[in-house]
Amino acid sequence: MDVIEVLRMNGGDGDSSYSNNSFIQRKVISMIKPIIEDALTNLYCGMNFPKTLVMADLGCSSGPNTLLVASELIKSIDKIRLKLGHDESPEIQFYLNDLPHNDFNTIFRLVSKFQKNLTQPMEPNSSLPPCYFSGVPGSFHTRLFLNKSLHFVHSSYSLMWLSQVPEMENTNKGNIYISKTSPPSVIKAYHEQFQRDFLMFLKCRAEEMVSGGRMVLTTLGRRSDDPCSKECCYLWDLLAETLNNMVVEGLIKEEKMDSFNIPQYLPSHKEVSNEVNKEGSFVIDCVEVFEVKLSEEDAQGTNMGKTMRAVAEPLLLSHFGESIIEEVFTRYTNVLKNHLSLKDSKLVNVCVTVSMTRKG
Amino acid sequence: MDVIEVLRMNGGDGDSSYSNNSFIQRKVISMIKPIIEDALTNLYCGMNFPKTLVMADLGCSSGPNTLLVASELIKSIDKIRLKLGHDESPEIQFYLNDLPHNDFNTIFRLVSKFQKNLTQPMEPNSSLPPCYFSGVPGSFHTRLFLNKSLHFVHSSYSLMWLSQVPEMENTNKGNIYISKTSPPSVIKAYHEQFQRDFLMFLKCRAEEMVSGGRMVLTTLGRRSDDPCSKECCYLWDLLAETLNNMVVEGLIKEEKMDSFNIPQYLPSHKEVSNEVNKEGSFVIDCVEVFEVKLSEEDAQGTNMGKTMRAVAEPLLLSHFGESIIEEVFTRYTNVLKNHLSLKDSKLVNVCVTVSMTRKG
Repeated sequence: MDVIEVLRMNGGDGDSSYSNNSFIQRKVISMIKPIIEDALTNLYCGMNFPKTLVMADLGCSSGPNTLLVASELIKSIDKIRLKLGHDESPEIQFYLNDLPHNDFNTIFRLVSKFQKNLTQPMEPNSSLPPCYFSGVPGSFHTRLFLNKSLHFVHSSYSLMWLSQVPEMENTNKGNIYISKTSPPSVIKAYHEQFQRDFLMFLKCRAEEMVSGGRMVLTTLGRRSDDPCSKECCYLWDLLAETLNNMVVEGLIKEEKMDSFNIPQYLPSHKEVSNEVNKEGSFVIDCVEVFEVKLSEEDAQGTNMGKTMRAVAEPLLLSHFGESIIEEVFTRYTNVLKNHLSLKDSKLVNVCVTVSMTRKG
Repeated sequence: MDVIEVLRMNGGDGDSSYSNNSFIQRKVISMIKPIIEDALTNLYCGMNFPKTLVMADLGCSSGPNTLLVASELIKSIDKIRLKLGHDESPEIQFYLNDLPHNDFNTIFRLVSKFQKNLTQPMEPNSSLPPCYFSGVPGSFHTRLFLNKSLHFVHSSYSLMWLSQVPEMENTNKGNIYISKTSPPSVIKAYHEQFQRDFLMFLKCRAEEMVSGGRMVLTTLGRRSDDPCSKECCYLWDLLAETLNNMVVEGLIKEEKMDSFNIPQYLPSHKEVSNEVNKEGSFVIDCVEVFEVKLSEEDAQGTNMGKTMRAVAEPLLLSHFGESIIEEVFTRYTNVLKNHLSLKDSKLVNVCVTVSMTRKG
């Protein structure tokens, strides 16, 4: 599987679209707002009346959250400017990055409406800065921008995606992700792939960012030291269970199931910090681990089924073909419903956020 | 008609797509190559070992020509570098701009393949520069980039499009463009709309370009001083004839026909130079007018019908609705076939190219 060609959130705005099933991601953006405001304040003060700010959102996807991030960042900058008593807004260049198969057309049609709204001031004395948007297709595991051209980098809910399914010595039999029953070599392969990918991400950003530039990264992660802890494997385990049943019933070939693995790794905060320190170009300002509590409605099987479909459908489609997709997600939603109705089955979503500064 | 929402070349890669019907535009790009190489050489020498070059193609559309322009510019830079004996390639940021409804998804999927090819050197000692691509949705009659951020701006076959259909005192009865039978007020409205739009274009670019930055613009234009000369109105006159016949047959309502006008103006080289001099931020390095000779095959009615459809279909679709589109272009192609088979009906395509430098 060529992850760059296959990985994307479901496009459009239909029932299974990422656009309509990204409420958890939205919640996270509002939770990390204080961390972002802190980083932006430090950046802004350090730059001493900046005339230009160049910002990038990496793995921006395609939907309302894409411009929500931009909007929050731009409003924060204006708030900071007013607080510091600066008269003139800096110009902002905002880069929206995702893989080439992301639905950029949909984003671009929203951008012009968004820019019109930006010109309407939020409060007296506020005049939102002139803001230029630009889409950047490509993997954030490669260079995307000119040397020393970025002041602020943001990424949310993207860094857990790996650049490829790890190469494994042993088959990850019956699983599609690391699990309690995965061979140790599989778990090691996943961890090492995360290390390689995150290191490459950091190296590229280190070249692209100005010294003193700030970066706030939020990834799905885990609290536990154990990479197979329930909190990160639960939803994939249930999808594996669904697929295994379809293998037993002859609806999916066993070798197809054996060769399918999700290119994702949910790191602990220690694993994140370790790589940042190892790479050496950034100082960590803070690392936080938090749990995203889902509303009762969001945590219901039907809604969780839609959320997972928006995220995983393109991967399954490319590997198993179109004919079984409806069946997989109908069954998976039922499995989710059954499990989530049990009293001790609390659905958790753990995020790791790290805020850092490019060294001088 | 909101031109920003409606104007675009036909997307996809089907029979009526712009992608498959843009041979004339391709020819023009190769014709102006010497002018571009001259401008780039002057830019490069003026910058004294540049580490970074930021380039933009405005009105890039979506198809093979989009990356052809980028490819020519990047190869030219490398040629100049080798000639001057510089060891290190500058990094290039390449912006691809068009209106928000342009098909950027198709371009972005081509970009990653294109970037891979770039890493394969063309000749010994050549190592093509690292090049980062970015899409910019928006009208080039507005600001699109940060202050003083561009070194080189290119635009081909786009500037003849106006930001809106000119407001007219009188109906342009029986016509869809300026024509021998248009009232003088209509011709004046078209000319003034071109002046306003091109002036705005120049003002925006003057703010966005560094001093010493170069700009090469090629637009469909005319040799004659008369804005209604046959060379620029011919193809639209024949489309008007087609539509008028459909009005007579009751297939199109007369008021629909009366309210349809093409938002395009084909300037003379004097009109182009006048606006550049009036705006005042640029020095003109050269202006050229040339005729694009079509191959016999290209000049046939069927192929010309497809070319015109790729360009005009979205405009007609938005005004007249989908139901008559097939009929319009079937008839138009026949009208074109009849006219182009006449001995004295030589199809001409006149371009005006202006190369200029941003004053210090």
